[in-house]
Amino acid sequence: MHTNHATTVKAFGTHASNQPLAPMAITRGALHADDVQIDISYCGVCHSDLHTARNEWNNTLYPSVPGHEIVGRVVAIGVQVTQFKTGDLVGVGCMVDSCGHCPPCHEGEEQYCDNGFTGTYNGPLFGGENTHGGYAQSIVVKEAFVLRISHAEKDLAGVAPLLCAGITTYSPLRHWGVGPGKKVGIVGLGGLCHMGVKLAHAMGAQVVLFTTSPTKVADGLRLGADEVCISTDPEQLARLAGQLDFILNTVAAPHQLDTYLQLLKRDGTMTLVGAPAEPHPSPNVFGLILKRRSLAGSLIGGIRETQEMLDFCAAHGIVSDIEMIPIQAINTAFDRMLKSDVRYRFVIDMASLNNPT
Amino acid sequence: MHTNHATTVKAFGTHASNQPLAPMAITRGALHADDVQIDISYCGVCHSDLHTARNEWNNTLYPSVPGHEIVGRVVAIGVQVTQFKTGDLVGVGCMVDSCGHCPPCHEGEEQYCDNGFTGTYNGPLFGGENTHGGYAQSIVVKEAFVLRISHAEKDLAGVAPLLCAGITTYSPLRHWGVGPGKKVGIVGLGGLCHMGVKLAHAMGAQVVLFTTSPTKVADGLRLGADEVCISTDPEQLARLAGQLDFILNTVAAPHQLDTYLQLLKRDGTMTLVGAPAEPHPSPNVFGLILKRRSLAGSLIGGIRETQEMLDFCAAHGIVSDIEMIPIQAINTAFDRMLKSDVRYRFVIDMASLNNPT
Repeated sequence: MHTNHATTVKAFGTHASNQPLAPMAITRGALHADDVQIDISYCGVCHSDLHTARNEWNNTLYPSVPGHEIVGRVVAIGVQVTQFKTGDLVGVGCMVDSCGHCPPCHEGEEQYCDNGFTGTYNGPLFGGENTHGGYAQSIVVKEAFVLRISHAEKDLAGVAPLLCAGITTYSPLRHWGVGPGKKVGIVGLGGLCHMGVKLAHAMGAQVVLFTTSPTKVADGLRLGADEVCISTDPEQLARLAGQLDFILNTVAAPHQLDTYLQLLKRDGTMTLVGAPAEPHPSPNVFGLILKRRSLAGSLIGGIRETQEMLDFCAAHGIVSDIEMIPIQAINTAFDRMLKSDVRYRFVIDMASLNNPT
Repeated sequence: MHTNHATTVKAFGTHASNQPLAPMAITRGALHADDVQIDISYCGVCHSDLHTARNEWNNTLYPSVPGHEIVGRVVAIGVQVTQFKTGDLVGVGCMVDSCGHCPPCHEGEEQYCDNGFTGTYNGPLFGGENTHGGYAQSIVVKEAFVLRISHAEKDLAGVAPLLCAGITTYSPLRHWGVGPGKKVGIVGLGGLCHMGVKLAHAMGAQVVLFTTSPTKVADGLRLGADEVCISTDPEQLARLAGQLDFILNTVAAPHQLDTYLQLLKRDGTMTLVGAPAEPHPSPNVFGLILKRRSLAGSLIGGIRETQEMLDFCAAHGIVSDIEMIPIQAINTAFDRMLKSDVRYRFVIDMASLNNPT
């Protein structure tokens, strides 16, 4: 199965922002000495996939094949590959390359590469050819950007969302020192937030989940929250004023940041991992000054930390709660995702690419 | 000169938001066992004085006597006072009391007292009698809130603004680790900013001053900036993109925070010490996420740190650049302060209280 020339594989993608995703054939490059070829078993569905397919960030290169929560099995390795062998379970997340020589790259924080990392899809923001993501049969990726998966094979589908939703929440929780003795808020209860709750709980923190949906209270407690606060209830919010060490805010829709900033202790930080299309209302500066609070942002995580997160999740039995779909249901899944109608992540069974259409 | 009963002293204050400051008599309390009585030599003029006199924060208690950059000489001590003796040069800043038993107070960060510190003027935000500030002949203050001044007596007037403008800039510079090897931006070039430039330079950082006024470039370099950037010039700003470890933003007028946030390195922080009456335009979330930047706030500093700052300034020969005025010029000074027409802080010679009116 070793391929030393470019190959054509089945995929799902779109040629324009106003067209649904549909079957297409794409070319995967030849296997270079440091490359790993992966047959894709499952691919998670991230909100970024939709943003990109529909050109909502005004930077999409077409044809566009989304997908950056990729898990599968190694089917071939380049001659210099040492860390993986055929048959290994592996993952690929949001990045497939970076410059390798800037300070962030040297420090293993490729997501902040000064020259711009190459995205798994829609990659060459700073030049080069387009890249195609995980809504496909297979992918060829540099060894340095391939992650090892030590979960049991039966859990593989639930591992897929860890590659983006998992690391996007794990990295800020670690960076801002979440652990035992810390009281942490997680805002949202979508795909990112549900991972944030599981991870913060596993890290030993006291976890407060914020949601607007009373119907999600039981689910929040099941996921690992110690407390669920209905964020539209002023009384519930008032009881938490000045109580939290850290807040991970996963909400990408514009909302009043002050609602949550006021819940931080002195020196507390709220970190945003979602970016709204329209700006949030401007935060109240007194709210920052009077307790030396910070409002921050965080972007996925580096390769080393992504491996650490996968190993942490395997050790703690953490996977994503998923709803499995065939690739033919992707357009419906996009629409349901917009309505938050999924608990908590769609994952595509890539064997469905062979379904009759 | 020991007073064990309340005394009446000369002061300048106002009875209403629309009235100019004018002479008035105020009562200072009896000297308690832990109190220090201070004859005020000089008092700096802070923008907060104006905000309060004119009730711009809608919380002013009248009659209002502003002033929280107080320096003078001890003229009497209570029987339990051990740290000061008659004749000592001392200072009083923004606080004259705090609860003393909450976590911030225990950690010497009385400015973040969970029960609300007592301001030197307009003090009892959380109950109690009004307090009257430094636009007066004398003041009686708890020993624990009195600062020791080790500058030469001839520098005393220039020391006054250190008690607010100095500590407000010193504390965040220290908290965010400004020192050798760090490139630091200071935004504004008013009273706070000119102290920020002097202090960051003395801490060993490389200092970039941001100002809208080309006429202030020479002054910025004289104050200790290594570089002055005209913040209305896109080319000068572009050269600094992603270059700064920390930015201290002293501007209280609403402005585009993104102009400065984009200049921060990965993991950089911009800290606001001014609070605008109208909100700033909302900061761009991508600007925070893409380099894990933070936007923070900071409030003056604790008593221990204020003493550290005064000692640091004495050791490095740092005082404020001032324009001395008699108290009778205070209303004109307020108006000039609004036009930034002062380099860089008005200080009242309190002997002028005895001038014929």
